[in-house]
Amino acid sequence: MDSKTIGILGGGQLGRMIVEAAHRLNIKTVILDAPQSPAKQINALDAHVDGSFTEYESIAKLAEKVDILTVEIEHVDVEALKRIQLKFPKIEIYPLPDTIKLIQDKYLQKEHLISHGIAVTDSQAIVENTSENLLKVGKQYGYPFMLKSRTLAYDGRGNFVVKDESYVEKALEFLADRPLYAEKWCPFTKELAVMVVRSIEGEVFSYPTVETIHQNNICHLVYAPARINDTLAEKAAILAQNAVKSFPGCGIFGVEMFLLENGELLINEIAPRPHNSGHYTIDACVTSQFEAHVRAVTGLPMPKGFTDFSTTVTNAIMLNVLGDKETPNKELETCRRALETPHSTVYLYGKTTRPERKMGHINIVSSSMDDAENRLAYIMGNKSEIPASTTDGKAQKPLVGIIMGSDSDLPVMAVGARILKQFDVPFELTIVSAHRTPHRMSKYAIEAAQRGLKCIIAGAGGAAHLPGMVAAMTPLPVIGVPVKGSTLDGVDSLHSIVQMPRGIPVATVAINNSTNAALLAVRILGAVDSKWLNKMTSYMNNMEEEVLKKAEVVEEIGYEDYLTDKLKK
Amino acid sequence: MDSKTIGILGGGQLGRMIVEAAHRLNIKTVILDAPQSPAKQINALDAHVDGSFTEYESIAKLAEKVDILTVEIEHVDVEALKRIQLKFPKIEIYPLPDTIKLIQDKYLQKEHLISHGIAVTDSQAIVENTSENLLKVGKQYGYPFMLKSRTLAYDGRGNFVVKDESYVEKALEFLADRPLYAEKWCPFTKELAVMVVRSIEGEVFSYPTVETIHQNNICHLVYAPARINDTLAEKAAILAQNAVKSFPGCGIFGVEMFLLENGELLINEIAPRPHNSGHYTIDACVTSQFEAHVRAVTGLPMPKGFTDFSTTVTNAIMLNVLGDKETPNKELETCRRALETPHSTVYLYGKTTRPERKMGHINIVSSSMDDAENRLAYIMGNKSEIPASTTDGKAQKPLVGIIMGSDSDLPVMAVGARILKQFDVPFELTIVSAHRTPHRMSKYAIEAAQRGLKCIIAGAGGAAHLPGMVAAMTPLPVIGVPVKGSTLDGVDSLHSIVQMPRGIPVATVAINNSTNAALLAVRILGAVDSKWLNKMTSYMNNMEEEVLKKAEVVEEIGYEDYLTDKLKK
Repeated sequence: MDSKTIGILGGGQLGRMIVEAAHRLNIKTVILDAPQSPAKQINALDAHVDGSFTEYESIAKLAEKVDILTVEIEHVDVEALKRIQLKFPKIEIYPLPDTIKLIQDKYLQKEHLISHGIAVTDSQAIVENTSENLLKVGKQYGYPFMLKSRTLAYDGRGNFVVKDESYVEKALEFLADRPLYAEKWCPFTKELAVMVVRSIEGEVFSYPTVETIHQNNICHLVYAPARINDTLAEKAAILAQNAVKSFPGCGIFGVEMFLLENGELLINEIAPRPHNSGHYTIDACVTSQFEAHVRAVTGLPMPKGFTDFSTTVTNAIMLNVLGDKETPNKELETCRRALETPHSTVYLYGKTTRPERKMGHINIVSSSMDDAENRLAYIMGNKSEIPASTTDGKAQKPLVGIIMGSDSDLPVMAVGARILKQFDVPFELTIVSAHRTPHRMSKYAIEAAQRGLKCIIAGAGGAAHLPGMVAAMTPLPVIGVPVKGSTLDGVDSLHSIVQMPRGIPVATVAINNSTNAALLAVRILGAVDSKWLNKMTSYMNNMEEEVLKKAEVVEEIGYEDYLTDKLKK
Repeated sequence: MDSKTIGILGGGQLGRMIVEAAHRLNIKTVILDAPQSPAKQINALDAHVDGSFTEYESIAKLAEKVDILTVEIEHVDVEALKRIQLKFPKIEIYPLPDTIKLIQDKYLQKEHLISHGIAVTDSQAIVENTSENLLKVGKQYGYPFMLKSRTLAYDGRGNFVVKDESYVEKALEFLADRPLYAEKWCPFTKELAVMVVRSIEGEVFSYPTVETIHQNNICHLVYAPARINDTLAEKAAILAQNAVKSFPGCGIFGVEMFLLENGELLINEIAPRPHNSGHYTIDACVTSQFEAHVRAVTGLPMPKGFTDFSTTVTNAIMLNVLGDKETPNKELETCRRALETPHSTVYLYGKTTRPERKMGHINIVSSSMDDAENRLAYIMGNKSEIPASTTDGKAQKPLVGIIMGSDSDLPVMAVGARILKQFDVPFELTIVSAHRTPHRMSKYAIEAAQRGLKCIIAGAGGAAHLPGMVAAMTPLPVIGVPVKGSTLDGVDSLHSIVQMPRGIPVATVAINNSTNAALLAVRILGAVDSKWLNKMTSYMNNMEEEVLKKAEVVEEIGYEDYLTDKLKK
């Protein structure tokens, strides 16, 4: 796609997945890392550089072979990068060395964000590592507080929780000789993350806000999208975008943040590269974080309207696969269960197994988060059966549910069912009584959307509560059919169904007219797929023709004969 | 994942995509083909074999390095494979050499399928290539008929259309010295294809039935799923499954078939390998055809319930990218447009450009086929603007139309409009009177679907004809709001709107309740994009919380004080 070659400092799993994305675009990559590192394994195009991303000589060797330098890890030698830039003025380095430098020192990172008006956790540098200084912090922040290494900290290494005064000595011992800062304890309710890509033109685009769950300080699960409300998700995305806007240059950034109980969002830290919290994008988004990074650093076009990088109705969970603590390769059992599970995909990184090492990850994608969680439970060995897919059923998964309060409503409702059959709409039909089976009704309403139904037709007579009650417990459109009872001509049913209070609509059709309910359902399905609208148009054309034929006959034979014929039938 | 190594005969794009899938599972692959072939470029793990998949020596060299042999092309040396099997009895070869042999000779393939009761096009072997024999066929089949080479035919090479007697000599010249068979002309309406994977245990699973469109005998576009009805799609899947069941062994098969006007399905040919018609699976399905093949030949678990390999409501179009006929690399312009287009992904194969060469492909994935087609038009350069996504929020194309008979209805209808605004639903609002602007009403109704509206909210009072009349002229769902007039309390409006005759439904809500009409519209949009359902759920949760808060207050301060407070407000 592009004649530029990308040199990558670091050949771990992030580098490997960058290489994979680059291959798909015919973009050449060269890796600097130990021989046979994961990224090198999947690129036989060029001779890679064996060495370390912390050495000038190795980076210089890489620079000679490429047009662009990028990183899969921020712990590279920034001074070396700056020297490279002077020696090879044509080379482009993204993220910018100054950005990497800022981010390497977590305390400088925080100061930088604060200076750009971005909310972060309260913290202060420890000028000298003495117990006196830490006790001072304790007085100011209270206990517990976090003591963190300013540099070379990741996956929780370099963090220490100072629970009370008695932990001060242990903390100093644990983090001896490292540059430190203290952070006020942050009682977050969730950890969120947003991947943001910045184009060479300075535009920033964010992926959906996700929720990360850590175990022993290592990312364990990612829920995409985060299980929070839209306003918060949007707020998080804007915060992440603003943070990334403060760094010139281009490429992808992983922005981690805390959500507090009061809804406040504070940035925890930023990674200037693809990030573990963005692995779900490989399956849940049309363009993965890795491809986005490649496109950003090479200046290839970005899709217009980045929110579109995520697909339509996807929910995803990512599970990190760590090397088993006791038995080497036992983690592969998790992967085998994932292979057995529809809707999940396994990614292994070509590494030798070691306890707690990131060996791979599993993405689960589904139209519902509950379904994804059920699959996760099987994959993690917490459930012995693979959940039946919510979307399975060989295309015959029902799209419309017809329910009625009593079998006495069936003669009326069956007419609508026949219409759905005529239109080839997959549907289900059952009896659910608001008054006699209230719990069954709740369950039906609550589960309907998750089961893939697109709308519900509910028929009821008299004090007809079923349509409205179901509508109160599902976000799906509910169509109400007033069934005529033995008294009041169905007006009781009609008013019970149509006169819903503000907030909960029921799409009401004429008394006993389940035909129209079914036709309305088909029209609603037209929003999903225009084939239903096409079918509806033919149906309407046929009706028109039928009436026109009758008109012809009545004009031909005269209305008196027509009436006689009709009476005979 | 598995300690077995796969040797692949052929290192073109199919081999490349098999290697990519194998990498993700830590499965080693070794390629036999020319140096630096596309598949070799992305695998630095092992030394590959340079040579040809039609030579025994090269295949033997490959066999020494691997546990399993598979192919990306069926034109391999089968006798060599059989010798290899004798020399290396432990090696597994999939597809089985006998299967490859059967499939290599298209006439034997047909006879095999017929003997298993599978419908194919009428054909007969040409025992000797003489004009006499061809004229005999012409008498029997009529003209035109197809003359085809039994072997080494692909992308239309080896096919000749014998239009009438005068073409017999040309045909013999064109296909000189090749083993031939004649095929009765098959007046198909569509070409369909189904990817089917067969596990080592003999289970077969099929991907969705797709529609292929050829240009100059080369696959140009693939529509997934095929634009046919569900019954036909299911019939095609069963036909393909039955065909694949007739071949022992395991692996993926591409089954191509013709759909005739009468709905009959005939198998055209079968490829015992990943297939161009299955490239869409990379983006539209959780497990790609390439991964399915790798899992089948290595005996790794298959997901239970294969229909699940396809994602939920995805529509996809695959566009092959061929080398430009005149200007080398001009085809990359198509790829750049694809990069600009949300919902599309580019795959390049690492090949040097040549006219008409398969250089890569583009997958477009969308929740609606119409939307995918619009994107395709931009990518192919037939449209100058990237279509706004049907699911994009930035594109403020209205999804809901609010109309009313008179500006006197506006105070009622504006309440609903504010709800749509609150939900961020793009909508339009105008006055359309059934009785005073009947032609404007027709135009509005007829054009609504084409303009991209997903539903219409119509408010009217008295002899309220607007909602029903609009419903009679659009296939879209129409929501009717009965507006209360100065007499009859709105019951006149309600009955005018709700009591529609069978055939034309209007989704009627309570009198004056445009709030519910708007909420119903949001629920209907939920069928297009589940984000609306999520918003509806939050809205409903908020309502619940509000009521619970009120309940708390009334319990706390007592109902008398509550009432007093309420009266004050």
